[in-house]
Amino acid sequence: MNISKSQLKLITSLSQKKYRLKHRLFIAEGIKVVQEFLKSSLEIENIFLVDDLELDIHLDKVVKISETELKKISNLKSPNKILGVFKIPEEKKIQHKGLVVALDGINDPGNLGTIIRLCDWFGITQLLCSRDTVDCYNPKVVQSSMGSLTRVSIIYTDLENFIQETTLPTFVADMDGANIYQSKLPKEGVLIMGNEANGVSEKVKKSILNTIAIPRFGQVKETESLNVATATAILLSEFRRG
Amino acid sequence: MNISKSQLKLITSLSQKKYRLKHRLFIAEGIKVVQEFLKSSLEIENIFLVDDLELDIHLDKVVKISETELKKISNLKSPNKILGVFKIPEEKKIQHKGLVVALDGINDPGNLGTIIRLCDWFGITQLLCSRDTVDCYNPKVVQSSMGSLTRVSIIYTDLENFIQETTLPTFVADMDGANIYQSKLPKEGVLIMGNEANGVSEKVKKSILNTIAIPRFGQVKETESLNVATATAILLSEFRRG
Repeated sequence: MNISKSQLKLITSLSQKKYRLKHRLFIAEGIKVVQEFLKSSLEIENIFLVDDLELDIHLDKVVKISETELKKISNLKSPNKILGVFKIPEEKKIQHKGLVVALDGINDPGNLGTIIRLCDWFGITQLLCSRDTVDCYNPKVVQSSMGSLTRVSIIYTDLENFIQETTLPTFVADMDGANIYQSKLPKEGVLIMGNEANGVSEKVKKSILNTIAIPRFGQVKETESLNVATATAILLSEFRRG
Repeated sequence: MNISKSQLKLITSLSQKKYRLKHRLFIAEGIKVVQEFLKSSLEIENIFLVDDLELDIHLDKVVKISETELKKISNLKSPNKILGVFKIPEEKKIQHKGLVVALDGINDPGNLGTIIRLCDWFGITQLLCSRDTVDCYNPKVVQSSMGSLTRVSIIYTDLENFIQETTLPTFVADMDGANIYQSKLPKEGVLIMGNEANGVSEKVKKSILNTIAIPRFGQVKETESLNVATATAILLSEFRRG
């Protein structure tokens, strides 16, 4: 047994947000994801490595373990050779410039992970999240956003205050909004996307200046909507295509 | 006990593709999803309803059950009052017209469900799938595509043959392709999207005429890519925006 009892307890506790906040640590798993994080500026706490894995990591923080031990600390159904414990970096200060995405109450870790990857693809460096949005260091978010998590600055904040204070033009997607294909979208601005079931909350919505809509071409009923991650993809593409 | 032993055995078997194919039946769950299917042209085999649910369904195929019984037949973590067993409709004939989406080896049920919803939104009535693409009557696909499953005609076929035979222009997304924002895209054509890890297979790719690309704006490395569902969202939006 190369993992101590206290390490085991600490690592398994990190699947819960309150312990991630307490210890300022999160976990990432699998060869590809951990390698991307090792190349980033993240501080490493520990790397647990199955002993048959030939990987070029020369660090005093590497602990060789067995497959059985990996299973005990892994959050994955099929653990993949390596688990890294990293320090949660300090949140950066909000910058009121560029194109910013703001999420109001996103619940699903897969959706947040996909949106982080989209921000990375479209060169969006700031992602603001309301405090009730799922934690970006949730293991499922980490696994689905992969290296993008280290390249996009994610800041949890009071969105209502931010929207009221910012000088950037603000945009929300809504069925009654202006057709995005016919709208002149600015290079700088804030795109606000809302909760999967309820959309953007009323208190945030009331201060948003512009309402835009993705036109529907099919025969679907009024109540149908696109998934929040695919809607974000289409909207960011429209902002960037110019 | 209002569910017979043979019904219980049949319903639980339908989570496996081979039994869905054998019985030509699939299941859908939850009030919203089942209601959408009841309004569609799908043939009903049975509706199992928790007895405290006040729902306006007057059919001789309704079986009232208890929450405990529902738990036994449900595929959901939190079963939601109702489970419907529906007949799998006959596949329609392929039409070589309009905008068609073709999927080559999509594995993830969530991705297929999201793409079915996108097709519905963008008025795409034909979705072709290679035979190794995940089954669209998989319970996870049914739950994530919801009513869209009944409005989009999904046909499993030999994509290699289809691409060779069709007179429609064919498009595949690839990093080296033409910038979609600068391409004149036709109203009719076939958009082929590939497997999550490996993209479109070589044997299908060799007969595709046009290669298009979604430009990258961020600093991400060559190996990174967008999730297949978000890439499909952006491409369909470009085809439809005109």
